[in-house]
Amino acid sequence: MEKFFYPNSIVVIGVSSRFTNLGKEIARNLYEFNYTGETHYVGSHEGIIFGRRIHTNIEQIRTPIDLAVILTPARTVPDYFQQCAQKGIPRVIIETGGFGELGAEGRELGNKILSVAKAAGMRFVGPNCIGLMNSANGMATPFATMKNVFKKGDVGIIAQSGGVALSLLNMLDGEQIGFSKFAAIGNKLNVDENDLIEYLTEDAETKIICLYLESIQAGRRLMDIALKSDKPIVAHKANIGVLSQNIAQSHTDALVNDDQVVETAFKQAGIARFRDMQNYLDFVKILGTPRVQGRNLAIISRSGGHAVIATDAAYIYNFDLPAFSESFLNEIRKSLRADVIKLNNPLDLGDLFDFEVYVRIVEHTLKQPNIDAVLFLHTYFASVEGETSRTLLKNVAELSHKYQKAVLMCVSTEQFELSQLHKQFDYPIYLSPERAIAALDTSIKYYERRDIIQAERNCPFSATLKEESGISDILDAAKAENRSPHLAEAMEIVRAAGIETPSSVVSRKKILPAGVGELKGPLAIKLIASGISHKSDVGGVVLNIPGDRLQVAIDAMHNNFSSKSGFEGVFIQEMAPTENAFELIVGAKRDAQFGPVLMLGFGGIFVELLKKTVLRIAPVSHNEIERMVSELPGAELLAGARGVPPIDKTSLMIVIDKISQLMLKYESISSLDINPLIVSESGAVAVDARIFVN
Amino acid sequence: MEKFFYPNSIVVIGVSSRFTNLGKEIARNLYEFNYTGETHYVGSHEGIIFGRRIHTNIEQIRTPIDLAVILTPARTVPDYFQQCAQKGIPRVIIETGGFGELGAEGRELGNKILSVAKAAGMRFVGPNCIGLMNSANGMATPFATMKNVFKKGDVGIIAQSGGVALSLLNMLDGEQIGFSKFAAIGNKLNVDENDLIEYLTEDAETKIICLYLESIQAGRRLMDIALKSDKPIVAHKANIGVLSQNIAQSHTDALVNDDQVVETAFKQAGIARFRDMQNYLDFVKILGTPRVQGRNLAIISRSGGHAVIATDAAYIYNFDLPAFSESFLNEIRKSLRADVIKLNNPLDLGDLFDFEVYVRIVEHTLKQPNIDAVLFLHTYFASVEGETSRTLLKNVAELSHKYQKAVLMCVSTEQFELSQLHKQFDYPIYLSPERAIAALDTSIKYYERRDIIQAERNCPFSATLKEESGISDILDAAKAENRSPHLAEAMEIVRAAGIETPSSVVSRKKILPAGVGELKGPLAIKLIASGISHKSDVGGVVLNIPGDRLQVAIDAMHNNFSSKSGFEGVFIQEMAPTENAFELIVGAKRDAQFGPVLMLGFGGIFVELLKKTVLRIAPVSHNEIERMVSELPGAELLAGARGVPPIDKTSLMIVIDKISQLMLKYESISSLDINPLIVSESGAVAVDARIFVN
Repeated sequence: MEKFFYPNSIVVIGVSSRFTNLGKEIARNLYEFNYTGETHYVGSHEGIIFGRRIHTNIEQIRTPIDLAVILTPARTVPDYFQQCAQKGIPRVIIETGGFGELGAEGRELGNKILSVAKAAGMRFVGPNCIGLMNSANGMATPFATMKNVFKKGDVGIIAQSGGVALSLLNMLDGEQIGFSKFAAIGNKLNVDENDLIEYLTEDAETKIICLYLESIQAGRRLMDIALKSDKPIVAHKANIGVLSQNIAQSHTDALVNDDQVVETAFKQAGIARFRDMQNYLDFVKILGTPRVQGRNLAIISRSGGHAVIATDAAYIYNFDLPAFSESFLNEIRKSLRADVIKLNNPLDLGDLFDFEVYVRIVEHTLKQPNIDAVLFLHTYFASVEGETSRTLLKNVAELSHKYQKAVLMCVSTEQFELSQLHKQFDYPIYLSPERAIAALDTSIKYYERRDIIQAERNCPFSATLKEESGISDILDAAKAENRSPHLAEAMEIVRAAGIETPSSVVSRKKILPAGVGELKGPLAIKLIASGISHKSDVGGVVLNIPGDRLQVAIDAMHNNFSSKSGFEGVFIQEMAPTENAFELIVGAKRDAQFGPVLMLGFGGIFVELLKKTVLRIAPVSHNEIERMVSELPGAELLAGARGVPPIDKTSLMIVIDKISQLMLKYESISSLDINPLIVSESGAVAVDARIFVN
Repeated sequence: MEKFFYPNSIVVIGVSSRFTNLGKEIARNLYEFNYTGETHYVGSHEGIIFGRRIHTNIEQIRTPIDLAVILTPARTVPDYFQQCAQKGIPRVIIETGGFGELGAEGRELGNKILSVAKAAGMRFVGPNCIGLMNSANGMATPFATMKNVFKKGDVGIIAQSGGVALSLLNMLDGEQIGFSKFAAIGNKLNVDENDLIEYLTEDAETKIICLYLESIQAGRRLMDIALKSDKPIVAHKANIGVLSQNIAQSHTDALVNDDQVVETAFKQAGIARFRDMQNYLDFVKILGTPRVQGRNLAIISRSGGHAVIATDAAYIYNFDLPAFSESFLNEIRKSLRADVIKLNNPLDLGDLFDFEVYVRIVEHTLKQPNIDAVLFLHTYFASVEGETSRTLLKNVAELSHKYQKAVLMCVSTEQFELSQLHKQFDYPIYLSPERAIAALDTSIKYYERRDIIQAERNCPFSATLKEESGISDILDAAKAENRSPHLAEAMEIVRAAGIETPSSVVSRKKILPAGVGELKGPLAIKLIASGISHKSDVGGVVLNIPGDRLQVAIDAMHNNFSSKSGFEGVFIQEMAPTENAFELIVGAKRDAQFGPVLMLGFGGIFVELLKKTVLRIAPVSHNEIERMVSELPGAELLAGARGVPPIDKTSLMIVIDKISQLMLKYESISSLDINPLIVSESGAVAVDARIFVN
């Protein structure tokens, strides 16, 4: 990737001197940003722009070229790309649109380019993009006309949309946050976000990686890169709902991801995920302040009302406002002659007018060991107190660096002053206490997750299943008949994996099978028919049958279903004890982008109320499974409530672990559900199971 | 109130020529804002400021005074106030702090002033405030030094905090929204928000009323004013959690309200409530655009990525994006020569470069009858396309007015351009599609609620309870013994109000009482003892007792509890049927600020999961009770789920109505709980009840 950002020479293909020509704007940007390498132009007509000749053929350039940028009509791109291959240009940026995002014909053009690239060992960015920028060498390939005004810094931007990438650049610059590398990758037919993220995790000039994505192809690789990265990765993953699919497809040929899977994967891999740009920006801003170690906040405010609003926000986001010690307050009173202030946390500075005293109070507060961060609220009319206020804010920012504690500065002033403040300070300025505190809360949770990842980086996953379990045989047998395992087989797989199941026998004919006499209590019978996937909906499940009614029930089941496709017989099963027990659903599906996804949820009577399930991407550590269980909405029920003893959590965790192992080891399984899994203080029993293979 | 805003003459008390004198700043603001009346100054020392003499006594002023503004040390305020009374000044603004917010001594000072005001028939604003401003006559009493830069307009601002009031003024002005009246009322010891809101609902210059409150004293009156108002009332009610109580008390002597009650009351009265200033401002902005009648949105965007982000937001907030008709698309293609655009909703303008075509496409879209609002996203570099973009935005805003449909304009550009845009346009500009769509969603819900209020304005509430019910006798009997009604009495009151209860008898001695033989099925027995309020926690409730065990159970209850305070005997009751039934909790409490608050929630096994209850302030219409039931989290269970038949909703609604009537008619009842109320398809039965009187 590095050579993409540090080419010694670039050829821009598609340049003309026409007013509306966009290739010329790429050339203009390379000038505007003072690109340090050599540039050449190719176009369909000869001409001169910016003092240089436009060649009509790449072969006319005698010197070697490191990078080509193509912006010509889509149908001409494969030819130009082929010429690049012949010239030995190893890297290309294709900015032209009209490929997969316009349909089958465009996709065919893309395939042509892909095969040329493969044969020639070339890499390319795009198509349908605005390409790359590098603040270190002035390389800037967007075809949008730009000014070289952006601050250099340590944020790397990778985005699927050029428009959003430029917005992000603008927004960051508006807050004095500079960029290192910039990549707008469009349809990402060859180079994708993973290639670029991996590069930026190693790029010395980049400290924070900012993403905007509309689709994720190689989700598992993205997770692995993020898990290894020590740099914060911040992502806006858009295209989340049915409404967005069409526009995202026609915009960057973006596929649709399962958003709950994306959410889970990002959290698990320590990627900070946002759905809107404002929270995104607030978070990036807070990454530039010292890390906050706890939830003890001091609020210092010139305005009592703003202190109330800030304190409400602290309450909503679960922060504490520890009382200041008497000795601390005395010191402020004495040394600062600030005895008029109402001393407290929040600290209302309303009656003080000397901003130097404000600074000293902030300094005293930062020295307190029981304070993790300061929220400093300042209100002023710039037309009256502009200069003194800017000095105040500058001094407070310096104290944050000096004491290595975050000071969240919130300012309420005129609009024109705000826009200047953002451009003058490289310390974050927030416009509302709510947003500052929300960002602080997000950052604390983010760092907690990163700590967990750090701690578990070398944590072993559990051993995989043993081959002698016979699971392969069952799967192979079903596969040979081109079907998924039926109920009895699914239950056998689950049992072989080490998950407890009730005792059972199978009745293939209208007689009580051997072994049925050993089953205890009232029994359940269930239809075994691979052609019927929701057996309880069609009367294929009968529960609580007394022993003397069993024959009748089995006969009825045979009579009703024996003519149905895939009928195999009747599954006869002991009832699992239900007293003080809960019905859970535990399962997994194989996501095309992220691999095996484990799922845990409530079943039975709670399923209407507790619809939200908890997901994890396998493999998962023991601790991660434990967190999965504790995150289940309604988990408090499982921990013992209203006289019901707590469930045996270890048994539940083992079931989840076994499912994870099944998915990892047997790649033909596309999904697996245990529903219900009956959990109680005495363990976890899988009462029903479905397995689908692809 | 009007005379507070339109005085012909003002005296400022507490003026001196000292540099740090704040009274002088009040005088300065009256000059700065070109106050049209006469002004006088009073101070402790003679002197001259702004060319006018400082009197040392109010009596030295020979002409009548309409309004006095006092800013002198707190201990001197009662004397000055007395002098105002003697001079016959009818209205006073007390800006001095150091009253109730500093404790008992300050509260005493406040009481002195209150009694002078009462005796002299005077009204006053404050203390501890910055007072009033009127953009019509330049009256401006804040002691903060200000510039006369704020736009005149139709927003009235009423705030408890001066700092927040000025921030609000700044924020609105930063978005080209002007103010009519401004009131910062501090401790609001005499004139409160209700007086001012009521005035602004009648003030011809005010169209929108913006509130910031830290406490609400007369909540019921606030609701009644809001219910009658046709002007939007927008409120930030702060001071919501335990953390904020101290700062709010020391800031404006604010009491704590039950925030769930405030939330309910505001919603019920059609007050738009916000907890943070950003959503607040977004909402006020949208009030300035034509009302949106439905959820059919057209998204028109120059950038495909921003269109994806906007469409995600539309999805999250439940908007629809109807497909454009073929004829509409053809018209655009033909008449606008815009055949390069990918035609769809969202409409991606990416390949068009002529902004006049953009305008015509927006116009065509606004003409479509199936489009309720347009979200127009524009991205540009101001340094390249600033002027043409501003013309574009101006033209689009004009189309919104022309077609009386809202166009939400979202702009992504440089920071400096944004701050100018806000100051140049009086049409709202949003910085992110998410915020625009969130504000639109809020406004649609707000108008829906206002429509309901409008429709039900003359809707009768149900008839009150009849006196012959005997309820008064029971309450009086308990009151005579200085206690709350015990279980048997509470059940009798509930039954007398018309709520179904299981058949029951009372055993006062260790014998089976008369009538017990007529009770059916297994029985429940419950301790009657007014001294024990949680009887089930101490073994005072035994359920499902077979007839032949009843004597033993009653004996045990007598043995265990007969020596306890308030023991009255044992309540013997039929068990309510529990099959296909749900346990609810229905009750009410009397809120000191808002009056009777009705409560509905789940009980039994669901109580841990469905902790959230639904409240309403009584009285409530039939429709309001119905909405209350449908808002209950988990209401889908009651409507029939998983084979359980739907409950008899009418019965449940009648119970809520009866409780409402009990609370409205019997003011001695401080709280009332029916727990559980067993609801099923056959009705609603109150199994247990507690009533407390004050």
